[in-house]
Amino acid sequence: MQTEKREKAVQIGRMQTEEELNKEIHRLNDRYEELGKSERRRLARLKRKKEAMEEERRRSREQEMVDSEFMREALKQAQKAAKLGEVPIGCVIVKDGRIIARGYNRRNTDHSTLSHAEIRAIRKASRVLNDWRLEGCTLYVTLEPCQMCAGAIVQARIPCVVMGCMNPKAGCGGSVLNILQMKEFNHQVEVKRGVLEKECSEVLSGFFKRLR
Amino acid sequence: MQTEKREKAVQIGRMQTEEELNKEIHRLNDRYEELGKSERRRLARLKRKKEAMEEERRRSREQEMVDSEFMREALKQAQKAAKLGEVPIGCVIVKDGRIIARGYNRRNTDHSTLSHAEIRAIRKASRVLNDWRLEGCTLYVTLEPCQMCAGAIVQARIPCVVMGCMNPKAGCGGSVLNILQMKEFNHQVEVKRGVLEKECSEVLSGFFKRLR
Repeated sequence: MQTEKREKAVQIGRMQTEEELNKEIHRLNDRYEELGKSERRRLARLKRKKEAMEEERRRSREQEMVDSEFMREALKQAQKAAKLGEVPIGCVIVKDGRIIARGYNRRNTDHSTLSHAEIRAIRKASRVLNDWRLEGCTLYVTLEPCQMCAGAIVQARIPCVVMGCMNPKAGCGGSVLNILQMKEFNHQVEVKRGVLEKECSEVLSGFFKRLR
Repeated sequence: MQTEKREKAVQIGRMQTEEELNKEIHRLNDRYEELGKSERRRLARLKRKKEAMEEERRRSREQEMVDSEFMREALKQAQKAAKLGEVPIGCVIVKDGRIIARGYNRRNTDHSTLSHAEIRAIRKASRVLNDWRLEGCTLYVTLEPCQMCAGAIVQARIPCVVMGCMNPKAGCGGSVLNILQMKEFNHQVEVKRGVLEKECSEVLSGFFKRLR
Protein backbone atom coordinates (compact mmCIF):
# COMPACT_ATOMS: atom_id res chain seq x y z
CA MET A 1 0.00 0.00 0.00
CA GLN A 2 2.73 2.42 1.03
CA THR A 3 4.63 1.59 -2.14
CA GLU A 4 1.53 2.00 -4.29
CA LYS A 5 0.91 5.48 -2.83
CA ARG A 6 4.45 6.47 -3.51
CA GLU A 7 4.19 5.26 -7.10
CA LYS A 8 1.10 7.35 -7.68
CA ALA A 9 2.80 10.39 -6.20
CA VAL A 10 5.62 9.80 -8.60
CA GLN A 11 3.16 9.45 -11.49
CA ILE A 12 1.60 12.83 -10.66
CA GLY A 13 5.00 14.37 -10.09
CA ARG A 14 6.15 13.19 -13.48
CA MET A 15 3.44 15.04 -15.36
CA GLN A 16 5.57 18.03 -16.02
CA THR A 17 3.65 19.84 -18.73
CA GLU A 18 0.18 21.25 -18.23
CA GLU A 19 -0.84 19.57 -21.48
CA GLU A 20 -0.10 16.10 -20.12
CA LEU A 21 -1.93 16.98 -16.93
CA ASN A 22 -5.01 18.27 -18.80
CA LYS A 23 -5.11 15.18 -21.02
CA GLU A 24 -5.00 12.85 -18.04
CA ILE A 25 -7.66 14.82 -16.14
CA HIS A 26 -9.85 14.71 -19.26
CA ARG A 27 -9.35 10.99 -19.69
CA LEU A 28 -10.28 10.27 -16.07
CA ASN A 29 -13.24 12.71 -16.11
CA ASP A 30 -14.69 11.05 -19.23
CA ARG A 31 -15.01 7.67 -17.48
CA TYR A 32 -15.62 9.09 -13.98
CA GLU A 33 -18.52 6.69 -13.26
CA GLU A 34 -16.29 3.67 -13.85
CA LEU A 35 -13.42 4.94 -11.63
CA GLY A 36 -12.49 3.09 -8.46
CA LYS A 37 -11.91 4.87 -5.14
CA SER A 38 -8.14 5.20 -5.57
CA GLU A 39 -8.49 6.47 -9.16
CA ARG A 40 -10.94 9.14 -7.98
CA ARG A 41 -8.45 10.20 -5.35
CA ARG A 42 -5.81 10.37 -8.05
CA LEU A 43 -8.07 12.57 -10.20
CA ALA A 44 -8.58 14.93 -7.24
CA ARG A 45 -4.82 15.18 -6.76
CA LEU A 46 -4.28 15.94 -10.44
CA LYS A 47 -6.91 18.69 -10.28
CA ARG A 48 -5.21 20.24 -7.25
CA LYS A 49 -1.91 20.17 -9.09
CA LYS A 50 -3.52 21.88 -12.09
CA GLU A 51 -4.95 24.62 -9.87
CA ALA A 52 -1.55 25.16 -8.25
CA MET A 53 0.02 25.46 -11.69
CA GLU A 54 -2.55 28.05 -12.76
CA GLU A 55 -2.09 29.98 -9.53
CA GLU A 56 1.68 29.94 -10.04
CA ARG A 57 1.32 31.22 -13.60
CA ARG A 58 -1.04 33.97 -12.51
CA ARG A 59 1.34 35.01 -9.74
CA SER A 60 4.32 35.03 -12.07
CA ARG A 61 2.40 37.16 -14.60
CA GLU A 62 1.54 39.58 -11.83
CA GLN A 63 5.16 39.68 -10.68
CA GLU A 64 6.27 40.41 -14.24
CA MET A 65 3.92 43.39 -14.34
CA VAL A 66 5.19 44.60 -10.97
CA ASP A 67 8.81 44.17 -12.10
CA SER A 68 8.17 46.11 -15.31
CA GLU A 69 6.52 48.90 -13.35
CA PHE A 70 9.48 49.31 -10.99
CA MET A 71 12.01 48.99 -13.81
CA ARG A 72 10.18 51.83 -15.54
CA GLU A 73 10.82 53.91 -12.40
CA ALA A 74 14.51 52.94 -12.56
CA LEU A 75 14.50 54.06 -16.21
CA LYS A 76 13.14 57.46 -15.14
CA GLN A 77 16.15 57.73 -12.82
CA ALA A 78 18.45 56.82 -15.73
CA GLN A 79 16.94 59.70 -17.72
CA LYS A 80 17.94 62.09 -14.94
CA ALA A 81 21.53 60.92 -15.31
CA ALA A 82 21.37 61.43 -19.09
CA LYS A 83 20.18 65.02 -18.56
CA LEU A 84 23.38 65.68 -16.59
CA GLY A 85 25.47 64.13 -19.38
CA GLU A 86 26.14 61.10 -17.18
CA VAL A 87 25.99 57.49 -18.40
CA PRO A 88 22.26 56.81 -17.94
CA ILE A 89 21.90 54.16 -15.26
CA GLY A 90 19.05 54.23 -12.78
CA CYS A 91 17.99 52.26 -9.73
CA VAL A 92 15.12 51.95 -7.28
CA ILE A 93 14.84 49.93 -4.09
CA VAL A 94 11.43 48.50 -3.21
CA LYS A 95 10.13 47.22 0.10
CA ASP A 96 6.60 45.93 0.72
CA GLY A 97 5.54 47.05 -2.76
CA ARG A 98 6.71 50.63 -2.19
CA ILE A 99 9.78 52.47 -3.53
CA ILE A 100 11.87 53.47 -0.51
CA ALA A 101 14.93 54.79 -2.37
CA ARG A 102 15.95 56.00 -5.80
CA GLY A 103 19.34 56.65 -7.35
CA TYR A 104 20.99 57.53 -10.63
CA ASN A 105 24.55 57.75 -11.82
CA ARG A 106 26.19 61.09 -10.93
CA ARG A 107 29.84 60.02 -10.99
CA ASN A 108 31.16 62.99 -12.96
CA THR A 109 28.81 65.53 -11.42
CA ASP A 110 29.73 64.52 -7.87
CA HIS A 111 33.38 63.73 -8.67
CA SER A 112 32.89 60.46 -6.82
CA THR A 113 33.04 56.84 -7.80
CA LEU A 114 30.54 56.27 -4.97
CA SER A 115 27.87 58.08 -6.97
CA HIS A 116 26.91 55.02 -8.99
CA ALA A 117 23.11 54.65 -9.10
CA GLU A 118 23.01 51.56 -6.87
CA ILE A 119 25.31 52.98 -4.17
CA ARG A 120 23.25 56.16 -3.96
CA ALA A 121 20.03 54.16 -3.67
CA ILE A 122 21.51 51.80 -1.06
CA ARG A 123 22.66 54.77 1.03
CA LYS A 124 19.17 56.28 0.96
CA ALA A 125 17.45 52.98 1.71
CA SER A 126 19.66 52.47 4.77
CA ARG A 127 18.75 55.95 5.93
CA VAL A 128 15.02 55.22 5.49
CA LEU A 129 15.18 51.86 7.28
CA ASN A 130 17.81 53.04 9.77
CA ASP A 131 19.64 49.77 9.20
CA TRP A 132 22.64 48.64 7.17
CA ARG A 133 20.75 45.41 6.48
CA LEU A 134 18.27 45.98 3.67
CA GLU A 135 16.18 42.94 4.47
CA GLY A 136 13.00 42.34 2.50
CA CYS A 137 14.14 44.73 -0.23
CA THR A 138 14.32 44.29 -3.99
CA LEU A 139 16.78 46.41 -5.96
CA TYR A 140 15.88 47.28 -9.57
CA VAL A 141 18.69 48.51 -11.77
CA THR A 142 18.71 49.25 -15.50
CA LEU A 143 22.22 47.82 -16.07
CA GLU A 144 23.97 44.82 -14.53
CA PRO A 145 25.96 46.09 -11.51
CA CYS A 146 29.74 46.57 -11.49
CA GLN A 147 32.02 44.81 -8.99
CA MET A 148 31.62 47.57 -6.39
CA CYS A 149 27.83 47.77 -6.59
CA ALA A 150 27.40 43.99 -6.68
CA GLY A 151 29.62 43.87 -3.60
CA ALA A 152 27.54 46.55 -1.85
CA ILE A 153 24.34 44.61 -2.64
CA VAL A 154 25.76 41.48 -0.98
CA GLN A 155 27.16 43.49 1.96
CA ALA A 156 23.74 45.13 2.48
CA ARG A 157 22.12 41.65 2.41
CA ILE A 158 19.63 42.68 -0.27
CA PRO A 159 17.62 39.52 -0.96
CA CYS A 160 16.60 40.17 -4.56
CA VAL A 161 18.00 42.07 -7.56
CA VAL A 162 16.18 42.69 -10.84
CA MET A 163 18.31 43.82 -13.79
CA GLY A 164 17.47 45.38 -17.12
CA CYS A 165 20.27 44.76 -19.58
CA MET A 166 23.59 43.02 -19.05
CA ASN A 167 27.10 44.53 -19.16
CA PRO A 168 29.16 41.75 -20.79
CA LYS A 169 32.54 43.50 -20.40
CA ALA A 170 32.33 44.63 -16.77
CA GLY A 171 29.16 43.35 -15.10
CA CYS A 172 29.42 41.34 -11.90
CA GLY A 173 25.90 39.99 -11.78
CA GLY A 174 26.68 37.08 -14.08
CA SER A 175 28.89 38.46 -16.88
CA VAL A 176 32.54 38.80 -15.78
CA LEU A 177 31.74 37.52 -12.29
CA ASN A 178 28.60 36.63 -10.42
CA ILE A 179 29.41 38.25 -7.08
CA LEU A 180 25.70 38.26 -6.23
CA GLN A 181 25.46 34.48 -6.02
CA MET A 182 28.82 33.19 -4.83
CA LYS A 183 28.39 30.38 -2.33
CA GLU A 184 31.71 31.45 -0.70
CA PHE A 185 30.07 34.60 0.70
CA ASN A 186 27.67 34.74 3.64
CA HIS A 187 24.79 36.04 1.51
CA GLN A 188 23.41 35.07 -1.87
CA VAL A 189 21.00 37.17 -3.90
CA GLU A 190 18.01 36.02 -5.92
CA VAL A 191 18.59 37.44 -9.40
CA LYS A 192 16.20 38.24 -12.25
CA ARG A 193 17.64 39.38 -15.55
CA GLY A 194 16.28 40.97 -18.72
CA VAL A 195 13.31 42.98 -17.34
CA LEU A 196 12.58 45.73 -19.93
CA GLU A 197 15.92 44.73 -21.39
CA LYS A 198 15.32 46.50 -24.71
CA GLU A 199 14.35 49.82 -23.11
CA CYS A 200 17.27 49.69 -20.65
CA SER A 201 19.71 48.91 -23.43
CA GLU A 202 18.33 51.61 -25.74
CA VAL A 203 18.66 54.38 -23.19
CA LEU A 204 22.39 53.53 -23.01
CA SER A 205 23.02 53.10 -26.73
CA GLY A 206 21.07 56.30 -27.46
CA PHE A 207 23.26 58.18 -24.98
CA PHE A 208 26.52 56.92 -26.48
CA LYS A 209 25.26 57.62 -30.01
CA ARG A 210 24.60 61.26 -29.08
CA LEU A 211 28.08 61.49 -27.54
CA ARG A 212 29.78 60.55 -30.81
CA MET B 1 80.45 41.31 -31.81
CA GLN B 2 76.75 41.96 -31.38
CA THR B 3 76.31 38.35 -30.32
CA GLU B 4 79.24 38.54 -27.93
CA LYS B 5 77.78 41.64 -26.30
CA ARG B 6 74.48 39.94 -25.89
CA GLU B 7 76.13 36.90 -24.37
CA LYS B 8 77.89 39.02 -21.82
CA ALA B 9 74.66 40.81 -20.95
CA VAL B 10 73.11 37.42 -20.40
CA GLN B 11 76.07 36.36 -18.24
CA ILE B 12 75.62 39.43 -16.05
CA GLY B 13 71.88 38.98 -16.00
CA ARG B 14 72.30 35.43 -14.85
CA MET B 15 74.12 36.40 -11.68
CA GLN B 16 71.02 36.46 -9.61
CA THR B 17 72.38 36.55 -6.09
CA GLU B 18 74.48 39.37 -4.74
CA GLU B 19 76.88 36.77 -3.38
CA GLU B 20 77.67 35.47 -6.88
CA LEU B 21 78.10 39.02 -8.08
CA ASN B 22 80.45 39.99 -5.23
CA LYS B 23 82.53 36.86 -5.76
CA GLU B 24 82.96 37.58 -9.46
CA ILE B 25 83.81 41.26 -8.84
CA HIS B 26 86.38 40.16 -6.26
CA ARG B 27 87.90 37.60 -8.61
CA LEU B 28 88.24 40.15 -11.42
CA ASN B 29 89.53 42.90 -9.09
CA ASP B 30 92.25 40.61 -7.73
CA ARG B 31 93.77 40.14 -11.18
CA TYR B 32 92.82 43.60 -12.49
CA GLU B 33 96.26 44.24 -14.00
CA GLU B 34 96.04 41.11 -16.13
CA LEU B 35 92.53 41.88 -17.45
CA GLY B 36 91.95 42.57 -21.12
CA LYS B 37 89.81 45.48 -22.35
CA SER B 38 86.62 43.51 -22.63
CA GLU B 39 87.10 41.92 -19.21
CA ARG B 40 87.56 45.36 -17.67
CA ARG B 41 84.34 46.50 -19.34
CA ARG B 42 82.66 43.43 -17.89
CA LEU B 43 83.95 44.29 -14.41
CA ALA B 44 82.57 47.82 -14.76
CA ARG B 45 79.18 46.44 -15.76
CA LEU B 46 79.16 44.06 -12.79
CA LYS B 47 79.97 46.94 -10.45
CA ARG B 48 77.13 49.01 -11.89
CA LYS B 49 74.79 46.09 -11.36
CA LYS B 50 75.94 45.76 -7.77
CA GLU B 51 75.30 49.46 -7.15
CA ALA B 52 71.83 49.15 -8.66
CA MET B 53 71.11 46.19 -6.42
CA GLU B 54 72.21 48.13 -3.34
CA GLU B 55 70.16 51.13 -4.39
CA GLU B 56 67.13 48.90 -4.92
CA ARG B 57 67.57 47.34 -1.48
CA ARG B 58 67.94 50.73 0.14
CA ARG B 59 64.83 52.00 -1.61
CA SER B 60 62.83 48.94 -0.64
CA ARG B 61 63.94 49.30 3.01
CA GLU B 62 62.84 52.94 2.91
CA GLN B 63 59.51 51.97 1.33
CA GLU B 64 59.00 49.39 4.06
CA MET B 65 59.52 52.07 6.69
CA VAL B 66 57.12 54.40 4.88
CA ASP B 67 54.54 51.61 4.57
CA SER B 68 54.82 50.77 8.26
CA GLU B 69 54.39 54.42 9.17
CA PHE B 70 51.19 54.80 7.15
CA MET B 71 49.86 51.43 8.32
CA ARG B 72 50.35 52.69 11.86
CA GLU B 73 48.10 55.62 10.95
CA ALA B 74 45.53 53.15 9.59
CA LEU B 75 45.77 51.27 12.90
CA LYS B 76 44.98 54.49 14.76
CA GLN B 77 41.82 54.72 12.68
CA ALA B 78 40.99 51.10 13.56
CA GLN B 79 41.25 52.04 17.25
CA LYS B 80 38.62 54.72 16.73
CA ALA B 81 36.27 52.04 15.40
CA ALA B 82 36.98 49.83 18.41
CA LYS B 83 36.09 52.68 20.75
CA LEU B 84 32.64 52.79 19.14
CA GLY B 85 32.27 49.03 19.55
CA GLU B 86 32.74 48.56 15.80
CA VAL B 87 34.92 45.88 14.23
CA PRO B 88 38.29 47.69 14.27
CA ILE B 89 39.31 48.28 10.66
CA GLY B 90 41.11 51.43 9.60
CA CYS B 91 42.30 52.99 6.38
CA VAL B 92 44.32 55.93 5.11
CA ILE B 93 44.87 57.16 1.56
CA VAL B 94 48.24 58.69 0.73
CA LYS B 95 49.24 60.91 -2.16
CA ASP B 96 52.70 62.38 -2.69
CA GLY B 97 53.80 61.14 0.73
CA ARG B 98 50.93 62.88 2.51
CA ILE B 99 47.74 61.43 4.02
CA ILE B 100 44.82 62.97 2.15
CA ALA B 101 41.99 60.90 3.66
CA ARG B 102 41.29 58.70 6.66
CA GLY B 103 38.46 56.30 7.42
CA TYR B 104 37.38 53.71 9.95
CA ASN B 105 34.54 51.23 10.13
CA ARG B 106 31.31 52.81 11.40
CA ARG B 107 28.79 50.38 9.92
CA ASN B 108 26.65 49.96 13.02
CA THR B 109 27.03 53.54 14.21
CA ASP B 110 25.97 54.97 10.84
CA HIS B 111 23.49 52.17 10.06
CA SER B 112 25.10 51.95 6.65
CA THR B 113 26.99 49.27 4.81
CA LEU B 114 28.75 52.14 3.02
CA SER B 115 30.52 53.06 6.23
CA HIS B 116 33.31 50.53 5.78
CA ALA B 117 36.70 52.15 6.43
CA GLU B 118 37.82 52.06 2.79
CA ILE B 119 34.59 53.53 1.37
CA ARG B 120 34.69 56.40 3.85
CA ALA B 121 38.32 57.13 3.00
CA ILE B 122 37.67 56.92 -0.75
CA ARG B 123 34.77 59.36 -0.45
CA LYS B 124 36.97 61.85 1.41
CA ALA B 125 39.89 61.46 -0.98
CA SER B 126 37.61 62.17 -3.95
CA ARG B 127 36.39 65.28 -2.18
CA VAL B 128 39.97 66.43 -1.54
CA LEU B 129 41.12 65.79 -5.12
CA ASN B 130 37.76 66.80 -6.63
CA ASP B 131 37.98 63.76 -8.87
CA TRP B 132 36.48 60.28 -8.89
CA ARG B 133 39.82 59.00 -10.20
CA LEU B 134 42.25 58.63 -7.31
CA GLU B 135 45.33 58.58 -9.48
CA GLY B 136 48.73 58.50 -7.80
CA CYS B 137 47.19 57.37 -4.51
CA THR B 138 48.07 54.46 -2.23
CA LEU B 139 45.40 53.03 0.04
CA TYR B 140 46.52 51.48 3.33
CA VAL B 141 44.03 49.23 5.09
CA THR B 142 44.47 47.07 8.18
CA LEU B 143 42.37 44.17 6.84
CA GLU B 144 42.05 42.75 3.32
CA PRO B 145 39.09 44.52 1.65
CA CYS B 146 35.67 42.89 1.12
CA GLN B 147 34.09 42.52 -2.34
CA MET B 148 32.47 45.98 -2.17
CA CYS B 149 35.61 47.83 -1.05
CA ALA B 150 37.86 45.96 -3.47
CA GLY B 151 35.37 46.90 -6.20
CA ALA B 152 35.41 50.55 -5.12
CA ILE B 153 39.22 50.58 -5.19
CA VAL B 154 39.21 49.33 -8.80
CA GLN B 155 36.41 51.71 -9.80
CA ALA B 156 38.33 54.64 -8.28
CA ARG B 157 41.44 53.54 -10.24
CA ILE B 158 43.61 53.50 -7.12
CA PRO B 159 47.05 52.34 -8.34
CA CYS B 160 48.34 50.74 -5.17
CA VAL B 161 46.88 49.02 -2.09
CA VAL B 162 48.83 48.00 1.03
CA MET B 163 47.13 45.54 3.38
CA GLY B 164 47.77 44.52 6.95
CA CYS B 165 46.30 41.10 7.61
CA MET B 166 44.25 38.89 5.33
CA ASN B 167 40.59 37.87 5.65
CA PRO B 168 40.60 34.26 4.42
CA LYS B 169 36.82 33.77 4.61
CA ALA B 170 35.62 36.94 2.92
CA GLY B 171 38.55 38.98 1.57
CA CYS B 172 38.61 39.96 -2.10
CA GLY B 173 42.23 41.08 -2.32
CA GLY B 174 43.52 37.56 -2.87
CA SER B 175 41.61 35.29 -0.47
CA VAL B 176 38.13 34.41 -1.82
CA LEU B 177 38.66 36.50 -4.94
CA ASN B 178 41.33 38.87 -6.17
CA ILE B 179 39.11 41.61 -7.56
CA LEU B 180 42.04 44.05 -7.32
CA GLN B 181 44.05 42.28 -9.99
CA MET B 182 41.61 40.73 -12.44
CA LYS B 183 42.82 41.14 -16.00
CA GLU B 184 39.16 41.18 -17.13
CA PHE B 185 38.65 44.65 -15.62
CA ASN B 186 39.95 47.92 -17.03
CA HIS B 187 42.19 48.60 -14.03
CA GLN B 188 44.58 46.44 -12.03
CA VAL B 189 46.00 47.39 -8.66
CA GLU B 190 49.52 46.87 -7.36
CA VAL B 191 49.11 44.98 -4.11
CA LYS B 192 51.34 44.64 -1.05
CA ARG B 193 50.28 42.29 1.73
CA GLY B 194 51.34 41.67 5.33
CA VAL B 195 52.52 45.15 6.40
CA LEU B 196 52.34 45.23 10.24
CA GLU B 197 50.37 42.01 9.83
CA LYS B 198 50.71 41.00 13.48
CA GLU B 199 49.52 44.36 14.84
CA CYS B 200 46.61 44.51 12.39
CA SER B 201 45.57 40.98 13.25
CA GLU B 202 45.88 41.53 17.01
CA VAL B 203 43.67 44.59 17.05
CA LEU B 204 40.93 42.41 15.52
CA SER B 205 41.43 39.32 17.68
CA GLY B 206 41.63 41.51 20.81
CA PHE B 207 38.32 43.11 19.87
CA PHE B 208 36.55 39.79 19.33
CA LYS B 209 38.02 38.38 22.55
CA ARG B 210 36.57 41.30 24.54
CA LEU B 211 33.19 40.74 22.87
CA ARG B 212 32.95 37.15 24.11
